[in-house]
Amino acid sequence: MKFSINYNDSKSLARSGKITTFHSEIETPVFMPVGTQAAVKTIDPAYLKSANVNIILSNTYHLYLRPGMELIKKAGGLHAFMNWDNSILTDSGGFQIFSLAKLNHISDEGVEFQSHLDGSKHLLSPELSMEIQRSLGSDIIMSFDHCPPSILDKKSIDQAVERTSLWTNLSAKYLNEHPSYYDWDQAFFPIIQGGVYTDLREKSATALVPLAKCGIAIGGLAVGEKKSSMFNIIEFLNTFISKDQPKYLMGVGRPTDLIESILLGVDMFDCVLPTRNARNGQLFTSAGIVNIENAKYKESFDPIDSSCSCYACLNFTKSYIRHLFNIKEVLGLRLSTIHNLAYYSDLMNRARKEIKNDNFAIWSKEYLKKMRSCPGM
Amino acid sequence: MKFSINYNDSKSLARSGKITTFHSEIETPVFMPVGTQAAVKTIDPAYLKSANVNIILSNTYHLYLRPGMELIKKAGGLHAFMNWDNSILTDSGGFQIFSLAKLNHISDEGVEFQSHLDGSKHLLSPELSMEIQRSLGSDIIMSFDHCPPSILDKKSIDQAVERTSLWTNLSAKYLNEHPSYYDWDQAFFPIIQGGVYTDLREKSATALVPLAKCGIAIGGLAVGEKKSSMFNIIEFLNTFISKDQPKYLMGVGRPTDLIESILLGVDMFDCVLPTRNARNGQLFTSAGIVNIENAKYKESFDPIDSSCSCYACLNFTKSYIRHLFNIKEVLGLRLSTIHNLAYYSDLMNRARKEIKNDNFAIWSKEYLKKMRSCPGM
Repeated sequence: MKFSINYNDSKSLARSGKITTFHSEIETPVFMPVGTQAAVKTIDPAYLKSANVNIILSNTYHLYLRPGMELIKKAGGLHAFMNWDNSILTDSGGFQIFSLAKLNHISDEGVEFQSHLDGSKHLLSPELSMEIQRSLGSDIIMSFDHCPPSILDKKSIDQAVERTSLWTNLSAKYLNEHPSYYDWDQAFFPIIQGGVYTDLREKSATALVPLAKCGIAIGGLAVGEKKSSMFNIIEFLNTFISKDQPKYLMGVGRPTDLIESILLGVDMFDCVLPTRNARNGQLFTSAGIVNIENAKYKESFDPIDSSCSCYACLNFTKSYIRHLFNIKEVLGLRLSTIHNLAYYSDLMNRARKEIKNDNFAIWSKEYLKKMRSCPGM
Repeated sequence: MKFSINYNDSKSLARSGKITTFHSEIETPVFMPVGTQAAVKTIDPAYLKSANVNIILSNTYHLYLRPGMELIKKAGGLHAFMNWDNSILTDSGGFQIFSLAKLNHISDEGVEFQSHLDGSKHLLSPELSMEIQRSLGSDIIMSFDHCPPSILDKKSIDQAVERTSLWTNLSAKYLNEHPSYYDWDQAFFPIIQGGVYTDLREKSATALVPLAKCGIAIGGLAVGEKKSSMFNIIEFLNTFISKDQPKYLMGVGRPTDLIESILLGVDMFDCVLPTRNARNGQLFTSAGIVNIENAKYKESFDPIDSSCSCYACLNFTKSYIRHLFNIKEVLGLRLSTIHNLAYYSDLMNRARKEIKNDNFAIWSKEYLKKMRSCPGM
């Protein structure tokens, strides 16, 4: 994996660059649509490519349970299995285990858990997470981390930091000893933990930065803490993280969160928000959130967002899409997902353009001023 | 609406021609995908057009209940509402009332029924059915008919024939007195009833043929009677129906039914089978039905049908599509629907080609021989 920074905003830490993997070139800042179970829900790869999506995220935990790593390996890897020939980043499974599964026991060895699907028992270790991600053949492998709930006491967060350091070392060691099954290299990103505590974040970053050869991620944010705490931690970590590598803020977030994070030098994002909210009828627009099921759109023969040029906005009215939700027709979910992904893609495109023009600090101030008054943005 | 017959098979009644409406040219024999509620489930119009679909069917009953004819009229008609600029045929609502709604009272005036959605009470009359279809702006309007269950006694079927004659006259009268709201003419097709009784079919055809200026439909078949009875009636009706107009067999059916019906001179078909079965994981292929959820396809890295060139077959394996069904991902429904619609479209394409080459009787014999041994085909 290569990363080059092509433009820096002179009035903020925002920068624009390019990640190059075996499968695609990815302009940053980038938002990665989430294809949890080897599919971006409702969307086929042909559409994603037509919408200039160059990288998606998929989930080790889910794919390990269904359809299993052996099957995907037999299929020739995740790219071949789902017919996606741009890049894939895979989460390590850590976050999902702590948020979805029934936890039985956590030790230095790994996490004993029961599947949220059938209650079957498993042990996910750093080594197994790496082996699964080797089998999937993702372009970017995430380290196996311990992501604790934000409500835990400082001592527990500290233990999670310690364990994340151990697991990151074990992950890196496994990858060094077990090369890629495929024709391409797989980059490895450690994940910094430490909650909202600057000393723990410093401890985590100090331990993990030496293991970061390609890029690094900030985990354990957007899990219930205050927004101001989140941005404080992102800013604080800049002291410790290499400026020359892409910085990935995991699981974030709302459009305004993305813009504020870009101001602090973040390069990569993923979140289920645009796709999940689309399926709930919540659409991101230049005028704020449109709740498409609202009765006021019954006779609204305008597009979701007249300034958007996605397939849904160019071809359908709010009235029609509302009708599709009303009759529970999945085409409505698809059109809404297409639109929300376009909103995020356009937003990143705009951010890159403003950074290139050295206007990001000014533009983002206007954007944030407008959008902070719109609930949900 | 214009209709021209371009090729006749010399060894059967099969023929190939072209229907021309304001919106599109439609080569016959044609299968019309069903978009009951202003959407072909899971499929967007752009895909339908790319798959050379030139006409779809939509439903007066459903659209009357949701979103209502006034809304669609305000949207500029059904074409504009759903962004479909090829042709639309609308069913009159008769069949749906008798199969879906709670019937309260049937009289010469119309049918009093309760909505299957909310129990609200309505009276659907020939005049209202025509008014709805005028509001929808469909290219082909179906007459309001009385379609009784096949289990009814002959006397009741006779009454339905009488009532259908009355309602067809009232439908035609209404249309004559109330012109199209839009820039295009709307063709009108009467629907012949009479169950499996040749004398009642003759009575119905004799009454309705004078009202058929553009085309005519055979209703009340494929509603539970024997297959042989169905084909007997189709053949029998040829004596009474004009050869110069398109003949539409409503609600049929399986691929073998289509081929047998084409042998008897049928030009137009519609059925929910390809789309509904797709959503149930039943896929039509050149080797018979593939039940995609079957465990034997878990590691099947071939397409659904290697002789098919639809988007699903060119890009995805049975293993992957099975996985999508397994995780209940609607992309699986979409890919399956794309495939099944392609099977029907390819079958009609092949039929037209064989008719053109005066080889349909021979080709269809082979096709029927092979496919009759495949359950569900």
